Amino acid sequence: MHWKILQLLKNRSPAYLSGEEAAGLLAVSRTAVWKNIKLLQKKGYRIESSTRRGYRLLESPDLLYPAEISEHLATSLIAAAPSLIKHHAQVGSTNTILKELAEDGAPEGTVALAEEQKQGKGRLGRSWASPFAKGLWLSILLRPAVAPQEAQNLTLLSATATAKAIAKTAPPLQPGIKWPNDLLLKGRKCCGILTELKAEADLLHYIIIGVGINVNADKKDFPEELRESATSLSLESGGVVPRVKLCSAVLQELDDSYREFLLHGPEPALEEWKRWNITLGKRVTLKTMSGIFAGTAVDLEKNGALVIEDDFGHQQSFLAGEVSLIPERKITN
Amino acid sequence: MHWKILQLLKNRSPAYLSGEEAAGLLAVSRTAVWKNIKLLQKKGYRIESSTRRGYRLLESPDLLYPAEISEHLATSLIAAAPSLIKHHAQVGSTNTILKELAEDGAPEGTVALAEEQKQGKGRLGRSWASPFAKGLWLSILLRPAVAPQEAQNLTLLSATATAKAIAKTAPPLQPGIKWPNDLLLKGRKCCGILTELKAEADLLHYIIIGVGINVNADKKDFPEELRESATSLSLESGGVVPRVKLCSAVLQELDDSYREFLLHGPEPALEEWKRWNITLGKRVTLKTMSGIFAGTAVDLEKNGALVIEDDFGHQQSFLAGEVSLIPERKITN
Repeated sequence: MHWKILQLLKNRSPAYLSGEEAAGLLAVSRTAVWKNIKLLQKKGYRIESSTRRGYRLLESPDLLYPAEISEHLATSLIAAAPSLIKHHAQVGSTNTILKELAEDGAPEGTVALAEEQKQGKGRLGRSWASPFAKGLWLSILLRPAVAPQEAQNLTLLSATATAKAIAKTAPPLQPGIKWPNDLLLKGRKCCGILTELKAEADLLHYIIIGVGINVNADKKDFPEELRESATSLSLESGGVVPRVKLCSAVLQELDDSYREFLLHGPEPALEEWKRWNITLGKRVTLKTMSGIFAGTAVDLEKNGALVIEDDFGHQQSFLAGEVSLIPERKITN
Repeated sequence: MHWKILQLLKNRSPAYLSGEEAAGLLAVSRTAVWKNIKLLQKKGYRIESSTRRGYRLLESPDLLYPAEISEHLATSLIAAAPSLIKHHAQVGSTNTILKELAEDGAPEGTVALAEEQKQGKGRLGRSWASPFAKGLWLSILLRPAVAPQEAQNLTLLSATATAKAIAKTAPPLQPGIKWPNDLLLKGRKCCGILTELKAEADLLHYIIIGVGINVNADKKDFPEELRESATSLSLESGGVVPRVKLCSAVLQELDDSYREFLLHGPEPALEEWKRWNITLGKRVTLKTMSGIFAGTAVDLEKNGALVIEDDFGHQQSFLAGEVSLIPERKITN
């Protein structure tokens, strides 16, 4: 019920809502209204209370409450109902939480959000620093009836959707995608995506897309060894970025792109990935299980593979590996 | 210890092994020898016991005891030690058992075997009849450091390895592979493969290859609705096929092909698949999530996709779906 009262407060803001009126609109007692105001205050909402005039919302906390996220959403699959959004103050990792829900049969579009991850996971078994309310740590459950081969395309699609969401929410930031799915700002990583899946050889059972965005993290929030290579949206934009708005934008962009993927296949997403990428045309090294390859990234194949051309003109395509971009000159902008 | 005594009995067979000699060789009491002989008899070994001459092995049961399987193996990865073979009289499904072991960190090459499955699984959530000691129900755990895109190739490779093992163990049977991984004898299915995997978008965590072969099943062992479309090796060859020998052959062929895959990539396996396949060049229909396609199967792509050419010469490739072969004339051989 407290979310309903919050809605009334928001609609009335910046004016006051009297306890009597709220009680009448919701058909509850004035004591019940007061108790729920207390609950909202405990959740971080700054609500002024005046004996004569009633209650007034002064400030909402930038916490990822499902009711707040849903307010900005017009999605048809992902987080299509507030009940599909599972919000936690602290978890081990949102991917792990969501995997358990997936195994228990959670529907497509279920989203796990956390203010803080204690065991945030990156690709290849690495950890991901995820301090309280400093970033967006979220995982999305999808169940497309496609082959596991499409997982790479869904990862690329997620990177593009996230880049677009950042550009919309925090202009003038324009993240570039480093193959396959790292988002960089001025050469530093601000977002990583960890996709995990369960499948038969030719049929996905489910796929979990874990997105980690460093939103309002300071330099000191990063582990020392990452301070040179990592950054956050606020560090680059010079201002605090609203997390609720960003989270809604990510979910909305993902929903749009994913529905297009279901209808028209991966090509539109791959084309868009190319527009946002900063890998193609660059000198790169690629670290793979079987060695390090150097050359120029020349193309993206339709299965999401990166094509690298070495100095002898020989092309090879890679489905996995870690790209390092070789700067042609000192980055100054 | 009973396996050591069995080994002595086998080495001595068809002659007798005295209790005294066995006790001496194993440095145990004659009572211990006798107790272990009892245990072997309980496990199905027919052992003659003569007060004067000792013990003599008359017949081994065709059960899939790890000690029996290992005897025929010279593998370097799959079931490379008897301790990697997990044998069960009855399980729900060997894939499920092995998945639990995989999650607990079981090493590559672990194999789950069962005499009977109560919830045997086929592709696409179907069930698979797996009566006691009538077939080979086994699952193999692999952990190759490759992209999940390779799962399809590992499935194709498994189908070929199994076909070769059947041809070697039960000549003159020559199974043909229906894309992607069903083995047919005279148009009827004798073996299915269910591959399940866990992965990141570009890195397999593990893959489980579940192989089900109808070995010595009679018509009445199949569910009524499958009696026309399913068959067993013994029904087609007219004799009982030794399961232990077949199981060892499957593991050996898989080990050989898998090591080649790790060293040289999927191409050799794809070429061999083509030699054993009965899909390419045939008129087929393919049932997919998005509809039914008809045409001629013309090629296998390097990612394991099937290329179908319709009557207008238009080619389309498919990673998933269910093939039906359209007989051009009545099958008579």
